[in-house]
Amino acid sequence: MTIKTMQKRSSEIALNAIREESSNMAPMLPSSILEAWSSLAPEVRAALIATEISTVSTLGTTNTSVSSFTSSGASDDSGEKSSNTSEEEDTNGNNNLNVLVEECSESGTKTILRPLERAPENIFEISKTTSRETIAVQKTASSTVTTKTTIMTTSKGWRNVFTLPISYDVNMVPTGTLLDPTNMQLLDSTGVHPEGYNTRFAVIDEAVDAIYGDKIRAYFTELGIELSTIVIPGGEPDKRPAAVDTILDAMCAYKLRRREPFLAIGGGVVLDIAGMAACLYRRGVPFVRVPTTLLAIVDASVGVKNGVDYCCCVTDETYKNRVGSFYAPSSCLLDTSFITTQDMRNVSNGFGEILKLALVRSVDLFELLETHGRALVESRFAPSPTVPDGVAQRIIDLSIQIMLEELGPNLWEYELERCVDYGHTFSKLLEMVPGVDIMHGEAVNIDGFFCCLLSYLRGFISMDTVDRVFKCMQFLQLPTTSSHLTSQLAWQSCKDAVEHRHGAQRIPLITEIGDSVCVSDITPEELDRALELLSQFDHIKSGE
Amino acid sequence: MTIKTMQKRSSEIALNAIREESSNMAPMLPSSILEAWSSLAPEVRAALIATEISTVSTLGTTNTSVSSFTSSGASDDSGEKSSNTSEEEDTNGNNNLNVLVEECSESGTKTILRPLERAPENIFEISKTTSRETIAVQKTASSTVTTKTTIMTTSKGWRNVFTLPISYDVNMVPTGTLLDPTNMQLLDSTGVHPEGYNTRFAVIDEAVDAIYGDKIRAYFTELGIELSTIVIPGGEPDKRPAAVDTILDAMCAYKLRRREPFLAIGGGVVLDIAGMAACLYRRGVPFVRVPTTLLAIVDASVGVKNGVDYCCCVTDETYKNRVGSFYAPSSCLLDTSFITTQDMRNVSNGFGEILKLALVRSVDLFELLETHGRALVESRFAPSPTVPDGVAQRIIDLSIQIMLEELGPNLWEYELERCVDYGHTFSKLLEMVPGVDIMHGEAVNIDGFFCCLLSYLRGFISMDTVDRVFKCMQFLQLPTTSSHLTSQLAWQSCKDAVEHRHGAQRIPLITEIGDSVCVSDITPEELDRALELLSQFDHIKSGE
Repeated sequence: MTIKTMQKRSSEIALNAIREESSNMAPMLPSSILEAWSSLAPEVRAALIATEISTVSTLGTTNTSVSSFTSSGASDDSGEKSSNTSEEEDTNGNNNLNVLVEECSESGTKTILRPLERAPENIFEISKTTSRETIAVQKTASSTVTTKTTIMTTSKGWRNVFTLPISYDVNMVPTGTLLDPTNMQLLDSTGVHPEGYNTRFAVIDEAVDAIYGDKIRAYFTELGIELSTIVIPGGEPDKRPAAVDTILDAMCAYKLRRREPFLAIGGGVVLDIAGMAACLYRRGVPFVRVPTTLLAIVDASVGVKNGVDYCCCVTDETYKNRVGSFYAPSSCLLDTSFITTQDMRNVSNGFGEILKLALVRSVDLFELLETHGRALVESRFAPSPTVPDGVAQRIIDLSIQIMLEELGPNLWEYELERCVDYGHTFSKLLEMVPGVDIMHGEAVNIDGFFCCLLSYLRGFISMDTVDRVFKCMQFLQLPTTSSHLTSQLAWQSCKDAVEHRHGAQRIPLITEIGDSVCVSDITPEELDRALELLSQFDHIKSGE
Repeated sequence: MTIKTMQKRSSEIALNAIREESSNMAPMLPSSILEAWSSLAPEVRAALIATEISTVSTLGTTNTSVSSFTSSGASDDSGEKSSNTSEEEDTNGNNNLNVLVEECSESGTKTILRPLERAPENIFEISKTTSRETIAVQKTASSTVTTKTTIMTTSKGWRNVFTLPISYDVNMVPTGTLLDPTNMQLLDSTGVHPEGYNTRFAVIDEAVDAIYGDKIRAYFTELGIELSTIVIPGGEPDKRPAAVDTILDAMCAYKLRRREPFLAIGGGVVLDIAGMAACLYRRGVPFVRVPTTLLAIVDASVGVKNGVDYCCCVTDETYKNRVGSFYAPSSCLLDTSFITTQDMRNVSNGFGEILKLALVRSVDLFELLETHGRALVESRFAPSPTVPDGVAQRIIDLSIQIMLEELGPNLWEYELERCVDYGHTFSKLLEMVPGVDIMHGEAVNIDGFFCCLLSYLRGFISMDTVDRVFKCMQFLQLPTTSSHLTSQLAWQSCKDAVEHRHGAQRIPLITEIGDSVCVSDITPEELDRALELLSQFDHIKSGE
């Protein structure tokens, strides 16, 4: 008992010391604390983390707070048992299990959690007590009767608590070496197969297959691997559920195993379709993303989103990215040499997303685009005397870094106010206009310029800034308007945003080049004023 | 500097003290440590957890270990900068960021990780160095020349590290009160809507709608809520992608918002289909599971799996649960009174999964089934003089508890050896025989009895045990064989298991009633001997 008490003391002193130290700290912990932390037994660290996670409310529908910890055996030395557990059957003498009490101030629900013996970090028996007051007012001609009823409900059940660790690398491959058999990165990315089977499966974009198909097959042949491929078209109209089925069919025929990573090589559309197939086949198989367009390199490759456009049989409308999921790749391999075989319009398209990132997050990136954008579109990232060495790489690095910084802490989008949604409010409907010939980055750019005008009308930015953005868009050969951007489409987009961003528009607007704010009170009149202003700009290219 | 040093000392002492204390501990931490831990600033706990997570390798393709922590600024007081970071550009003076070094002993890859400024817990700039040795042996008539080449590859990129917290409650509702408007649990489960909209969306099983449809609608009408429903059939042949589309269509038409929980009310098939739609619509919307069959209450309701059977256009075969995902519900509501309106065959079907759990995990549960199974099937969980009070609830509680204990720590099935897969090796193909009339629990039971015979042949259990299991299955009115369980189907099932459980059969067999082991070396001859033995049993009911 003396030893136990001492241990308890030492741990309290220990953690108090950490608290004192940490109160003066920057968000990054000093290495001394990290070393001390890592010297703890893995089980202890895991148990502490589990404790932490169990108090997190994932969906945010209830705002719970842990009010107290009690332990039936170890909480104090008086031998007094906590009443919370004394009523529980405990035939194995496991009275060291900690009982947790959670109280929700909003709903008044009190939950007692008791860890189960065989999975004490994950499963808890719970007992919930809710009290609800109802007040009924009855009015008659002569009097008013108020009845107050309190209903107490107790229910039991279980809580399942789990933490899913996600980790993947986005690798820059030395330019032009990805398909060189002396570079093993592409093969290595598909994992170590202890059984030594020598087959691989790849989903390839039709456009990529036409240019690089032979080289891709030769790479694997040279390394003694039999490659099975499914080639699918990667245009915006191809981004439909049927394309996912095509991949699933090919996976079944190939007999893809549960832990066998496959390759997805192509532009954003193909990566989004393949990602959805990866999530769904056998409830998830690993996959490696190889983006082959500028747009995919800076956008589709770095996050965890996948999906297709969905045509609803009831409303007979097609909804952009309405069906898909969040599912992480096992890794991404980026080789910028693929961009050199894109046409100029496709390179411009990629700059649509890059410029968006610059507008909401980085004036440095914006200045690079202002200065070198035109030459980069024209040279399509091939070495060129008009572009200084390293500029192209710097733009890509900055874009990916900003994108990852914004996505990383919010990978599953629990937070719906996202500056990276800039240019993604009005573009969704623009892209879905039947028969329209508009690319994703182009639509994002039209939306982004329209939002600049909304920012100007709110007094967030000056007309000089609007002009500067407009000029940069012209350098990048990006459209800034579309005849389909009507008053009606704009207002419908705001209403759709309320649905998709749950109850509020949450539309990002820029406050200067490199910074943004979300607004939720845009009116139809405001949209019309912005459209009026838009019509006064000269356009070098329209979205049709 | 003196203060800094003292702080560093105190933290080291602190964590050393925890280590000492924790080395004598049971897996559950004493409350004193938990209290001390929770007294730390949330940022510090988050940072420590992030450190921990960043060293976890999720896919297991590389076995990495963190070899050292160094800090460019704070690691020691001599002012010496770590060479790892000195080469990095650092214009913002952020030299407090910790650099992590990871080494993979298998591949020899060394990775340096440097946290990004804006998302230091999630995004790391990485630099990987891999050295690969290739040995070429050339033989000529007179000599052998061995060439050893070492290729060093360095690549840079980023690592995205994230932890997804999952938590949901499985609530036992007081029997028969779920659809009583004085019990608000059903409405409350669909969340608190601050905007106060008074509509809800529900997916309802056709069979449930026929019996409870009016009562469900009346419940919401009474509470002033307008309920939109989509009714879908819930038979095994209905578990197809088209059913998911039906729900997605209805969601689009209803304009389901991104954070608006919907209800899925029905048997296992409907819950699996609705779960897949929940995962896919807008890349995931919250949903509440209300299982209405014994099978769904103990099985489909408690885990995070969803999915449908998939008919491949290339092979022209249909694969059981080939397409689906892992996606957690926001909560589950269980009311066992639904079971009373099931027919006996459906109640037996539910006992198929319960008996499976008993065989692999609990002799107590098995004995309850042996003693009361027959009466429970006949009374279909309605109060009955032949079943003592509390027995039905005890069986359900034990089943859910065991299921959760087994699933909980392995929710995403990173571990492929799972005792709950007992009965799920041969049943998959049995259920997929064209035109066969077999229910899931029945197929699981046939598989489970066949595995008992395999266990007996390996000497794991005695023939007395086999007989005891056989009798219990008869009490529960479950089939123990099927004319479709042929030598060919059995061996194909083993081959499919190798694909699905990635490279090994991993078939659970029981070693006694209540315990199991996974085997991966079952041969066609062994299967034939078990089939021979199976044919010697008298069967009261076959699976057709």
